Amino acid sequence: MPTRVKYSKNRNTSIVKDARTMKPPFVLFLADIQDTLAAKSATGLLYWRPEDCIAQVRMPDCGVSIELPAVDLAEAARLGAKTFVIGVTNSGGILNPRWHSYILSAINYRLDIASGTHDRLSDVPEFVAAANRTGVRLLDLRHTDTPIPKATGLKRQGQRLLTIGTDCACGKKFTALAITRDMKARGIDCTFRGTGQTGIMISGEGFALDTIIGDYIAGAAELLSPSNKPNHWDVIEGQGSILHPSHAGVPLSLLHGSQPDAFVLCHEPTRLHMLGVTYPIPSVAAVREVTERMGRLTNPNIRCVGISLNTSAFQRDIFQLKQQLRKEHNVPVVDPVIDGTNEIIDYMHSIGLLTE
Amino acid sequence: MPTRVKYSKNRNTSIVKDARTMKPPFVLFLADIQDTLAAKSATGLLYWRPEDCIAQVRMPDCGVSIELPAVDLAEAARLGAKTFVIGVTNSGGILNPRWHSYILSAINYRLDIASGTHDRLSDVPEFVAAANRTGVRLLDLRHTDTPIPKATGLKRQGQRLLTIGTDCACGKKFTALAITRDMKARGIDCTFRGTGQTGIMISGEGFALDTIIGDYIAGAAELLSPSNKPNHWDVIEGQGSILHPSHAGVPLSLLHGSQPDAFVLCHEPTRLHMLGVTYPIPSVAAVREVTERMGRLTNPNIRCVGISLNTSAFQRDIFQLKQQLRKEHNVPVVDPVIDGTNEIIDYMHSIGLLTE
Repeated sequence: MPTRVKYSKNRNTSIVKDARTMKPPFVLFLADIQDTLAAKSATGLLYWRPEDCIAQVRMPDCGVSIELPAVDLAEAARLGAKTFVIGVTNSGGILNPRWHSYILSAINYRLDIASGTHDRLSDVPEFVAAANRTGVRLLDLRHTDTPIPKATGLKRQGQRLLTIGTDCACGKKFTALAITRDMKARGIDCTFRGTGQTGIMISGEGFALDTIIGDYIAGAAELLSPSNKPNHWDVIEGQGSILHPSHAGVPLSLLHGSQPDAFVLCHEPTRLHMLGVTYPIPSVAAVREVTERMGRLTNPNIRCVGISLNTSAFQRDIFQLKQQLRKEHNVPVVDPVIDGTNEIIDYMHSIGLLTE
Repeated sequence: MPTRVKYSKNRNTSIVKDARTMKPPFVLFLADIQDTLAAKSATGLLYWRPEDCIAQVRMPDCGVSIELPAVDLAEAARLGAKTFVIGVTNSGGILNPRWHSYILSAINYRLDIASGTHDRLSDVPEFVAAANRTGVRLLDLRHTDTPIPKATGLKRQGQRLLTIGTDCACGKKFTALAITRDMKARGIDCTFRGTGQTGIMISGEGFALDTIIGDYIAGAAELLSPSNKPNHWDVIEGQGSILHPSHAGVPLSLLHGSQPDAFVLCHEPTRLHMLGVTYPIPSVAAVREVTERMGRLTNPNIRCVGISLNTSAFQRDIFQLKQQLRKEHNVPVVDPVIDGTNEIIDYMHSIGLLTE
């Protein structure tokens, strides 16, 4: 199973050797965040795995709440929680020392700890000591000990769809998860492939591409979607934007390693600038053109099969926006939250990409 | 001085805190290599800094020799060598345990040790102990402790030239060093910026891009060529190929972060496949087109100012090959080993890029 994450092996002990996936049910730790966006992993888990999320734990000064019972750790343990999930993100991916007492307490209640931070749980000696004593696992989901080879560019069997963005944080993960859900509902053999911490938490596998040396990102993408049955689809979570001046190399390497047969363009129509920089958001057409041009290197048959809009902040006429993009690009245009993605799957049928 | 390498700070001691550049003269260690290509760092240093290289040290089973006196360590010390440079590369960047006794002996003769391997000298306890005892520096040139921010994409003052390749190992470093040498000879204010271990050894500064997390490569490129006087040129060593399926993200990020005003295309005309993969070498025209298309994001005025051929293995009519490329691309075509790069610099004058 080369695509499963091997969680950070603790370097002093062997407590996490057999760790693979987070054991449900989960209690989601919102820590001391003030902004819903920082609860990205918690809200993602709650949306996509609601049956596995039973409670939230918040620090006294936390400014965010999600739709789960707010409990303390004793109550979380009593409810049967098996894993304490650090459900928040911060810039830098730091394991804030203010959270330590909560994490320690969860370990003492014999809950596994799962973290998507850059900082490793297994680098904190007191966590390691407590985990050894209680027999719980410390799951550093953003890290892998899987040796990643350089990409070969060789064609693999099976089919692949990659979500592509005009920016960061514009719906690539959501779109890929929605397509996976809708394909599965129609009996199509498919697998979601996570490339970021939240995607990995939701699916229990994947590689966090933002921890990988540049030279090996395409290789990680090849490992992530290995050879498969001819009719199997990997639906791969895209990262960043190929026209973003800070990080375009990452999505380019993901594109090359994924060798997608199909891509869906994700776009947030109200944003003026790309996140973190003063550059304007590129047009959907520009990102489509560059994706096709660069993607042809490893898959000459790459094609755009849909546009996915995040219209949550769009105040004008959504129907008109969709019509305009549909006319310009000649592919389905959906908001996956409102419409689902069946129109895209129908289109893939109509052009012969799906034959089931 | 944000662009200078901060060498690997030893994590147990503080012996390398003020390390900046390798102290000449150098004795070059060829270890046990059997192939001249593996002596890349030694031959690069000898070509570009001949005055600083005084001897070579070879293991009994070494199959390579360079044009320097072959000495033992006692003799190297007697000749006044100040730095023992590990002048070889291997796949994986490993510090071979077979070399340890030589490195230890050099430390005991009070020579600094410089290494471009992925493995760190400062991770070997016996080296650290000996270096502490003798007061020498362990220079892990491939690693940096400089915090690297994400790229901003903001325009910087000064001008930049980047070498671009149709493949790995086709002359990008050599071409950048030759242009720097030829610009300096004409009084042009310029600096070579190294992006790989040998370039860093030769120039004493730079970042080894092949050790950097994908998201930060463009940021490293921005740090590497900071804002400068309006007429100053940074001549930046390119890496890899933007059409190579294993690693294209790295050169794309380097292109975005470098924001080059000018690029020189480097090509090895006898090669059939890109290194390490079964893909054919792309045409010079294809790499030029993609470089211009992608480079325009951070510098709309990017332009190709020359083609640099490595004709060392070319058996046919070099003049005819050059004429054909010149006609097709309308820029100078040189082999920098044979012709130097003055024709490219003249061309930059003629199109107004150089005004001195």
